[in-house]
Amino acid sequence: MNHLASQPYQFMGADSPIEEAQWVMVGLPYDGTCSYRPGTRFGPNAIREASWGLELYSPFLDKSLENIRYADWGDLELPFGNREAVLTRIRESAEDILKNQKHWIGLGGEHLVTLPVIEAYLKKYPDLCVVHFDAHADLREDYLGERFSHATVMRRIVDLIGPSRLLQIGIRSGPKSEFEWMNQNRTLLSAPSELKKRLDDWKDRPIFLTVDLDVLDPSIFPGTGTPEPGGMSFLDLQNWLSCLQQSHIVGFDALELSPHYDPSGVSNIVAAKVIRECLLLTL
Amino acid sequence: MNHLASQPYQFMGADSPIEEAQWVMVGLPYDGTCSYRPGTRFGPNAIREASWGLELYSPFLDKSLENIRYADWGDLELPFGNREAVLTRIRESAEDILKNQKHWIGLGGEHLVTLPVIEAYLKKYPDLCVVHFDAHADLREDYLGERFSHATVMRRIVDLIGPSRLLQIGIRSGPKSEFEWMNQNRTLLSAPSELKKRLDDWKDRPIFLTVDLDVLDPSIFPGTGTPEPGGMSFLDLQNWLSCLQQSHIVGFDALELSPHYDPSGVSNIVAAKVIRECLLLTL
Amino acid sequence: MNHLASQPYQFMGADSPIEEAQWVMVGLPYDGTCSYRPGTRFGPNAIREASWGLELYSPFLDKSLENIRYADWGDLELPFGNREAVLTRIRESAEDILKNQKHWIGLGGEHLVTLPVIEAYLKKYPDLCVVHFDAHADLREDYLGERFSHATVMRRIVDLIGPSRLLQIGIRSGPKSEFEWMNQNRTLLSAPSELKKRLDDWKDRPIFLTVDLDVLDPSIFPGTGTPEPGGMSFLDLQNWLSCLQQSHIVGFDALELSPHYDPSGVSNIVAAKVIRECLLLTL
Amino acid sequence: MNHLASQPYQFMGADSPIEEAQWVMVGLPYDGTCSYRPGTRFGPNAIREASWGLELYSPFLDKSLENIRYADWGDLELPFGNREAVLTRIRESAEDILKNQKHWIGLGGEHLVTLPVIEAYLKKYPDLCVVHFDAHADLREDYLGERFSHATVMRRIVDLIGPSRLLQIGIRSGPKSEFEWMNQNRTLLSAPSELKKRLDDWKDRPIFLTVDLDVLDPSIFPGTGTPEPGGMSFLDLQNWLSCLQQSHIVGFDALELSPHYDPSGVSNIVAAKVIRECLLLTL
Amino acid sequence: MNHLASQPYQFMGADSPIEEAQWVMVGLPYDGTCSYRPGTRFGPNAIREASWGLELYSPFLDKSLENIRYADWGDLELPFGNREAVLTRIRESAEDILKNQKHWIGLGGEHLVTLPVIEAYLKKYPDLCVVHFDAHADLREDYLGERFSHATVMRRIVDLIGPSRLLQIGIRSGPKSEFEWMNQNRTLLSAPSELKKRLDDWKDRPIFLTVDLDVLDPSIFPGTGTPEPGGMSFLDLQNWLSCLQQSHIVGFDALELSPHYDPSGVSNIVAAKVIRECLLLTL
Amino acid sequence: MNHLASQPYQFMGADSPIEEAQWVMVGLPYDGTCSYRPGTRFGPNAIREASWGLELYSPFLDKSLENIRYADWGDLELPFGNREAVLTRIRESAEDILKNQKHWIGLGGEHLVTLPVIEAYLKKYPDLCVVHFDAHADLREDYLGERFSHATVMRRIVDLIGPSRLLQIGIRSGPKSEFEWMNQNRTLLSAPSELKKRLDDWKDRPIFLTVDLDVLDPSIFPGTGTPEPGGMSFLDLQNWLSCLQQSHIVGFDALELSPHYDPSGVSNIVAAKVIRECLLLTL
Repeated sequence: MNHLASQPYQFMGADSPIEEAQWVMVGLPYDGTCSYRPGTRFGPNAIREASWGLELYSPFLDKSLENIRYADWGDLELPFGNREAVLTRIRESAEDILKNQKHWIGLGGEHLVTLPVIEAYLKKYPDLCVVHFDAHADLREDYLGERFSHATVMRRIVDLIGPSRLLQIGIRSGPKSEFEWMNQNRTLLSAPSELKKRLDDWKDRPIFLTVDLDVLDPSIFPGTGTPEPGGMSFLDLQNWLSCLQQSHIVGFDALELSPHYDPSGVSNIVAAKVIRECLLLTL
Repeated sequence: MNHLASQPYQFMGADSPIEEAQWVMVGLPYDGTCSYRPGTRFGPNAIREASWGLELYSPFLDKSLENIRYADWGDLELPFGNREAVLTRIRESAEDILKNQKHWIGLGGEHLVTLPVIEAYLKKYPDLCVVHFDAHADLREDYLGERFSHATVMRRIVDLIGPSRLLQIGIRSGPKSEFEWMNQNRTLLSAPSELKKRLDDWKDRPIFLTVDLDVLDPSIFPGTGTPEPGGMSFLDLQNWLSCLQQSHIVGFDALELSPHYDPSGVSNIVAAKVIRECLLLTL
Repeated sequence: MNHLASQPYQFMGADSPIEEAQWVMVGLPYDGTCSYRPGTRFGPNAIREASWGLELYSPFLDKSLENIRYADWGDLELPFGNREAVLTRIRESAEDILKNQKHWIGLGGEHLVTLPVIEAYLKKYPDLCVVHFDAHADLREDYLGERFSHATVMRRIVDLIGPSRLLQIGIRSGPKSEFEWMNQNRTLLSAPSELKKRLDDWKDRPIFLTVDLDVLDPSIFPGTGTPEPGGMSFLDLQNWLSCLQQSHIVGFDALELSPHYDPSGVSNIVAAKVIRECLLLTL
Repeated sequence: MNHLASQPYQFMGADSPIEEAQWVMVGLPYDGTCSYRPGTRFGPNAIREASWGLELYSPFLDKSLENIRYADWGDLELPFGNREAVLTRIRESAEDILKNQKHWIGLGGEHLVTLPVIEAYLKKYPDLCVVHFDAHADLREDYLGERFSHATVMRRIVDLIGPSRLLQIGIRSGPKSEFEWMNQNRTLLSAPSELKKRLDDWKDRPIFLTVDLDVLDPSIFPGTGTPEPGGMSFLDLQNWLSCLQQSHIVGFDALELSPHYDPSGVSNIVAAKVIRECLLLTL
Repeated sequence: MNHLASQPYQFMGADSPIEEAQWVMVGLPYDGTCSYRPGTRFGPNAIREASWGLELYSPFLDKSLENIRYADWGDLELPFGNREAVLTRIRESAEDILKNQKHWIGLGGEHLVTLPVIEAYLKKYPDLCVVHFDAHADLREDYLGERFSHATVMRRIVDLIGPSRLLQIGIRSGPKSEFEWMNQNRTLLSAPSELKKRLDDWKDRPIFLTVDLDVLDPSIFPGTGTPEPGGMSFLDLQNWLSCLQQSHIVGFDALELSPHYDPSGVSNIVAAKVIRECLLLTL
Repeated sequence: MNHLASQPYQFMGADSPIEEAQWVMVGLPYDGTCSYRPGTRFGPNAIREASWGLELYSPFLDKSLENIRYADWGDLELPFGNREAVLTRIRESAEDILKNQKHWIGLGGEHLVTLPVIEAYLKKYPDLCVVHFDAHADLREDYLGERFSHATVMRRIVDLIGPSRLLQIGIRSGPKSEFEWMNQNRTLLSAPSELKKRLDDWKDRPIFLTVDLDVLDPSIFPGTGTPEPGGMSFLDLQNWLSCLQQSHIVGFDALELSPHYDPSGVSNIVAAKVIRECLLLTL
């Protein structure tokens, strides 16, 4: 039985044997609920399916995925309803990938899944910096009494790396206190030129890029749980991302796709294209 | 400012002052997740909105809501992400309503919300019996390690009342062990005539009726998280329910409407009509 | 320029020149509102488009449209916001068709459009009888103060023909008074056998058949403004309709398709198939 | 029975007792039709539901709803099919609110509902000026013979206040005559800077702000009856609105949300956010 | 890198190594078009994704998938726009599976994909019989001049096996000639009892079961290209299928799911459940 | 029977008798598949229906359709599954129109339909130039082995006219080789100013304008088979198109609308408005 005769279900072009891949995609179908069906849990497979409508080559970056070795590891099986176990499992998977000298590509899934990945990365890259695209600051100390939620994830990450190693882009919703914190800590950027300047200081630092896709305007990305009008266009995002071309990106994720809210399927394609562009940034 | 000049947002016809109402509707927008948006959390308001397309009179039962005093209490504010607090709050609300000599109508929300209501009822009605419509037995001892979930709720209720005070209708999905348990305990009924006979023994017993709306076939009720093909038609359900006309129903709920999955809005109307029929059963 | 080279937009098979047609379809895109877009206004074209997915032959009736000469007249242009003018225009069109010895097929549009057609028919067929399929009795004396609305249309028709020349099928929603009226006047039928018996008395009488498609269960016909759970299946409707095979049908309409509420498009196909079956009844 | 234990269904944060509120939201579920279901009639509740996904604080304006006392009065009950009675009822409600020294926030519903509000305002504020955002000029003398429709509403308002007290923004569709009228009367503005200059002359004048949400591009606001491509982005609208920060806004409305046309729910969120921003302008 | 740590994307429970599997699922994403996106091409993955909401155990058949060894081979890569090559590839894959003493489970995809599978089976099982569920007879000699299409597939199969080895169930649409052919050849069955009787004659014959899912009523299966009102319910289908419990099924397929037409996702679940039931029939 | 009493189903305002029309619209419901339903096949009628929500006057161009004589010829009947016959039929129809001194307006349908039209035009206008809006270059030599597909259509056209008579706008997806070809042949433009300059050289040349509507960003045009994020806004497109005001446009088409993917209907309106703007360019 020749397995190669059939097309496995994975991100387009991800046909490196996992042993030879430099980058490894991992689906994180978590949406913090024990019920079958709603939400970001269906994000990873929607991304994979949509990816087949894209080309390997990006004319914007003039680079092609043909020149990267990447694999698709499938989805982690996550024990819904037991957040602790979920976080542990993700952290261990990230450690496994890093131990094998590979880089992590997280397909979300809600934003909380980034926290255990950062924990794993900090063991290997103690001076890790984080670039964070999002509509929401996610900097609450707690959310309705919960310290670990997709509304607090960046605060938990700041607990680990401090505010000076965080850059935030696109934030346009939150309580006043979050905006005061961002102003005080100078984490929030308002133009690509500013990002370029700040990245100049991080030339040799390892960078983790975390993209909550709701940073995009809901006109182009309606398929998400908390769409926030007033965001950037896809071209804006490409311009922001291209600032990272000289940076040393060691891992990234793209999160919060909730495919059922967009019957046109455009949001799925957007998510897949963001991942293609991010992966090409590392070339 | 005459408040009566404007129409409050509530279930149609629910214009009794709450003090004079015999029955009180309570929205339970719980879906076990801390994220905004997906799922059954939007059920209660979808039911209210759809109810305005219905008549007060049911030709099937030849009874009218004009002859019942009922109020709509609005939704409980439920602290997402803290299941314990959610269950406590629902239980206390049910106790409050029972203490005031009123009857509970729960608008779901997921099925777990029935458990604290049963706990409250048992204090007032220690011999309470439960009639349970559902596609799924919900009898698991635990679900992915969780003892309190919408997949275990009936087992938790059985822990309180024993199997002899439970009747189940419409169950058509579950592991083999659940069906063995139901056979062994004779809880699962297969025809309305059987239900009538069993209810004869419960003539003077207080009955709580819990309707997981996915007992209906997904053709008529697609708007739910785990649709299970092969269910009953709306007319079938009306026939089953009409067996309860002589019973002493002291409370009921209708659950698991997830309105976003049915763009036609039919599921919302179905849920509202089930509630109308159940309420008329008590007349 | 050979016009025959292109396919005109019309009901499938409706290629008789209008002069030779025995039956003429007329679109009635009325939904009682002056705003562009929502509702039954889009019904007629949705029916036409869906009809092309059907066969000319009905295995249920063992008859084929190939043996009927029918044309599609397009839509009437109806002055929205001026109900009087709308009713006048429809009546005049129906008179025009009858004067030319043809039969009317109305594609709705809301149910009120049947009234002016009946007025026109009564001039030619003073002893006209009406068979009415609907979920709603439409027998109110007035609706929110309005005497002419889709909720009063059958009462206005009864004003013209009296209750003894009306048969009603499928009614399952309305205030108690409507059901009392139907019981008193014996207009409401409960089984096809009953219909057959009643039609025996009308063997030589001209019959107008008016089908509010919401008589069907919303599982098979969700695309309508006021879906009412508990209706008949498509097969049930075919069985009811087949009782009319020996009757002298002189006109009919199919109403209340609101295509935007059913993204699957099934409701459009159902409406088109009902029209095919009704037209074949006349063969 | 403590009513405060349950969350009433209202716009987020609208928890001032109505007696203490400075601003009062009124739902106007009118779409000019007597049929249940389609259209803008469902706008007000969709706005309320979506509002709970927003924050009280606007980083764009750096202001928070915590500093405004506002209440949600619910929906007016409007006698469909009797336009005169609808207009009268809205006018009387607006008069009631103004008499109580409060300000009107209209949640549409179609644009015609603005006319009776302006009539009420003119009694209290004889020198009222109107700022009008819209894709359509709504300046027709009549529409298909009707003088009172959502396509003529601004012309009727001009009949009351004259063209010099009207400013129009975003208009991009209409017959040539409307554009000639706007050019002649200099009501149509093309840039925020122009608006600022014009508002300088109105520093002490009371201003009513009426926002037909279809002024936005359909990419970000598809949920409306007559989407017109080529409109402004959400950020554009925020920039236009911010010109009114120094103005004396005494009332406003946001109109023409038709939620069923946007299954993603983004349009509902957009409408709610526009209302938040408008209300914050008054701070 | 432990591949077992991640959940591959496949039909639920299909975790036999392919070498040990008795049954092998093959996705056939063909819809006869060279364009990305529309149609049944997305069927196989929609089935896989939906399958995870089902249980392994069928209470209807009282059998469980735990007792079958089956694998999911993924999708065949099919050269769109070259029908000949598509058919060849499918035939070779089926031959490969049969050569390895395994059984074929085809996940459609349009109905034409059954033809090459039958060709492969006939080499191994020269006396193969076919049981065909469908709304359409698919017996045309050609369709718009094409001899190989999803409207002619059963005629091509009859060319190979003759009419006496074909049974057809659920057919309700087609030209008169197809129904005449079926009557003449006695292929069309009208009740499960009839099927049982006919199968008695085939006790020892190998049977291929081909299920065009549009045999179901569009109320429960709207997600298909040519929905035909008047079909069977899911329970009806289960009753029909259960007649095959004693038969020697050597292969089967389930076809014509077009997931984009059913935003509720119910059709996907139906397709997955049909496959579970068919597979359990072989136990 | 006065046919004028009813409104034929056609593009708004297209009421010139075909003999007097200068421009003739032709629907091309082709999507390369023999199956009923999916795809661009439904484009032409969706455009017609949506057109009735538009005005005849364009404020952007300050021109009105009242000043153009145009007719709507309906749809060509295209033999699905026989690409050769489809292309021949379109070519002959275009020749027919040109022979009658009229101009072609193609309503797509997939992009391949442009090829036979260009072939017809070249006979009458041997020096024809082509302006091509698209997200995809469509310049492949072949696609999965096929030389004639919507992914190769522009290459086939270049075979006829050479690269120097082609201008391309909006291309943002394709393999690297296509971008190299465009750079080498200077066909790809990046700003309207560039287009103006290039058109200056073509002042007296006949121009065919072909608009693949996916040149627009999927935020405003989600209803298409291969949406590609990062495209132009509707206003951008209007600006590009207005460069052609002085050009000698002799024919145009608008393609690749796939209406089922956009339940809001906005894409249909966009397509209709693009056609209005293109037609006004010729004034």
